[in-house]
Amino acid sequence: MNAPARSSEAALAERLARHADVARALDADAVALVPGPNFTRAFGHAFMSHERPFLAVIPAKGRPAAIVPALELQSWELTGFAGDVFAWTDQQGYMDAFRALAERLPMRRLAVEGQVMRVFVHHALKAAAPALEIIDAEREISALRIVKTADELAALQAAIDVSERALARTLETVRAGMTEAEVERALVRALFDEGADGLAFAPIVAAADNSARPHAKARPDYALRAGDALLFDFGATKDGMCADITRTVFVGHASDEARAVYETVLEANRRGIAAGGPGATPHQVDDAATAVLEASPFAERIRHKTGHGLGREVHEAPWIMRGVHEPMAPGTVYTVEPGLYAPGAFGVRIEDDVLIEADGARALTRFPKELMIVGR
Amino acid sequence: MNAPARSSEAALAERLARHADVARALDADAVALVPGPNFTRAFGHAFMSHERPFLAVIPAKGRPAAIVPALELQSWELTGFAGDVFAWTDQQGYMDAFRALAERLPMRRLAVEGQVMRVFVHHALKAAAPALEIIDAEREISALRIVKTADELAALQAAIDVSERALARTLETVRAGMTEAEVERALVRALFDEGADGLAFAPIVAAADNSARPHAKARPDYALRAGDALLFDFGATKDGMCADITRTVFVGHASDEARAVYETVLEANRRGIAAGGPGATPHQVDDAATAVLEASPFAERIRHKTGHGLGREVHEAPWIMRGVHEPMAPGTVYTVEPGLYAPGAFGVRIEDDVLIEADGARALTRFPKELMIVGR
Repeated sequence: MNAPARSSEAALAERLARHADVARALDADAVALVPGPNFTRAFGHAFMSHERPFLAVIPAKGRPAAIVPALELQSWELTGFAGDVFAWTDQQGYMDAFRALAERLPMRRLAVEGQVMRVFVHHALKAAAPALEIIDAEREISALRIVKTADELAALQAAIDVSERALARTLETVRAGMTEAEVERALVRALFDEGADGLAFAPIVAAADNSARPHAKARPDYALRAGDALLFDFGATKDGMCADITRTVFVGHASDEARAVYETVLEANRRGIAAGGPGATPHQVDDAATAVLEASPFAERIRHKTGHGLGREVHEAPWIMRGVHEPMAPGTVYTVEPGLYAPGAFGVRIEDDVLIEADGARALTRFPKELMIVGR
Repeated sequence: MNAPARSSEAALAERLARHADVARALDADAVALVPGPNFTRAFGHAFMSHERPFLAVIPAKGRPAAIVPALELQSWELTGFAGDVFAWTDQQGYMDAFRALAERLPMRRLAVEGQVMRVFVHHALKAAAPALEIIDAEREISALRIVKTADELAALQAAIDVSERALARTLETVRAGMTEAEVERALVRALFDEGADGLAFAPIVAAADNSARPHAKARPDYALRAGDALLFDFGATKDGMCADITRTVFVGHASDEARAVYETVLEANRRGIAAGGPGATPHQVDDAATAVLEASPFAERIRHKTGHGLGREVHEAPWIMRGVHEPMAPGTVYTVEPGLYAPGAFGVRIEDDVLIEADGARALTRFPKELMIVGR
């Protein structure tokens, strides 16, 4: 065994030790991880989570264990996991593996990722250990990945750069008469042409009244008209990290009302970014942005909080909203995406990805934010 | 209100009535759906499921209800849902909505999708109604979408056609010296160029020893060599439907052992397809394919069952495995994908998508299956 291998095993052991810390802090016997972003970060490999239960259990003290579908064993060995492995085949089914785990690692209280673990795994755990208390430790477990590593930040910046190049290319082609779906298709092709590994989420390309739906889908039958707002909310992935950027442009021209709304949202975006920095809280960032919207003539068009953390998931901790008072540390990445929505008319959202650094907060997204008229 | 709108509302009512049937059959008070494939099919619109609980409850008898995040309300109205809606905002949090639901719809026993609902929703339901029994009805609920509609079949065929055109284009470019990651990138670009809406899952492009891992990832640092097996397992999506196709080709030349393994897997694939038809069971299909592998000199290389249903999810019911004896009806779609894997050496898998019709089973995938040598 060579030095790099040892060093990667040491890094795995170190990451698992942080999970054991979480178990102890919650007075739990162990933390359980299932395939998803925490699992990928802990084990350094991405696994699919389909119909087959797949579970790693990191006890507060002692040797970890895992329930692994047999057909994942070859890939699982690449992680360098040094614990007990209970494999199961499709023919055997998975309950024997859960019972073997419960026998090897008697537990009273288990901390799980409530936003990732599904009910069928919860039920299998309870069937194998009826007295087991399963607590939702999503917040505490996911907190381990709030502060990004240098590798994660490099991948995120690459994902953002790809996204911005794709947006620039797409905007050059937009014309009145194109459908929302055609614009979306152009954007997706540009993303892969520019080097995206994948899409962080199904892109939103929404014009006119559709832009007033915060989670709209592109319509195949709506053709852009002069004066329409046109909202893009999308992101590439690179090496498992997700970009997330929103820009709202106007086709041909923009009405006075549209301009006033746009400037309000842009000011909220700028205030939100400026409120970040080491020790700043999500509450402060949301409050700085939302206060601008609330003080405007468009306050009744507010529909959502200011943002969310960004990394291996496109939505992750910290949640950028009033009432969240935990100070943020350097290395934290989150979105600042104020928006105003007039149902039946139009919406405007401007979203940047922000990194807290030692001496302030810096937008990783650099796409221009001045009101832009396209297709003329 | 015009006729088409009424007809779409009638179709929604009809789909919800089938869910009420499931509740009654399970002696449950209601079925709960969360965003995912069943939700999309029931409501005719896709919703994202992130950190915000979103839940539709269809009672065995009476008016349905839904818990909807406020920022999804505009999109939710498009579904034509006629039940009670409990909306919640980020500032309010979601527990009041769960308590209001529990008051409006007192329940003793609730049937949920165990493979889709996550633990945090389970915990919110239990917090609002501590005596509630939550049962896993994944099988019964998902069974409602085993038989595909004509629209679903048309979208699936389109997804398959896109996937096959993209594979053909990619294979033309493969040469020894390319890395797995380069081949994967070429495949993904071809998929979007050919009209994919998205990827059904992260494609598998794996050569040589990596092809022996059933769920391998493309390596950026492995360059193809003459004699390598090269396995592609991927699929486009169109209109929410997922293609899933696997072909294994060889770079430059194939060894005698590779040819013998390939012919074994191909025979298993053909027998598996031929075993399908109205009234055939998953057991019969798996048995027909697996018996070929078991009778071969390569029996110890078997790692997985023969296949899975295919539709809005790339893995869904029915599970094509021994022990599943429910007869399959016309309109059912599933994969037949036998494989043989020699760890450290190479793997071969050949996967087709199969539709049961009134008079037999027909492969929707039509990409050639004769042993193919590329890059020479």
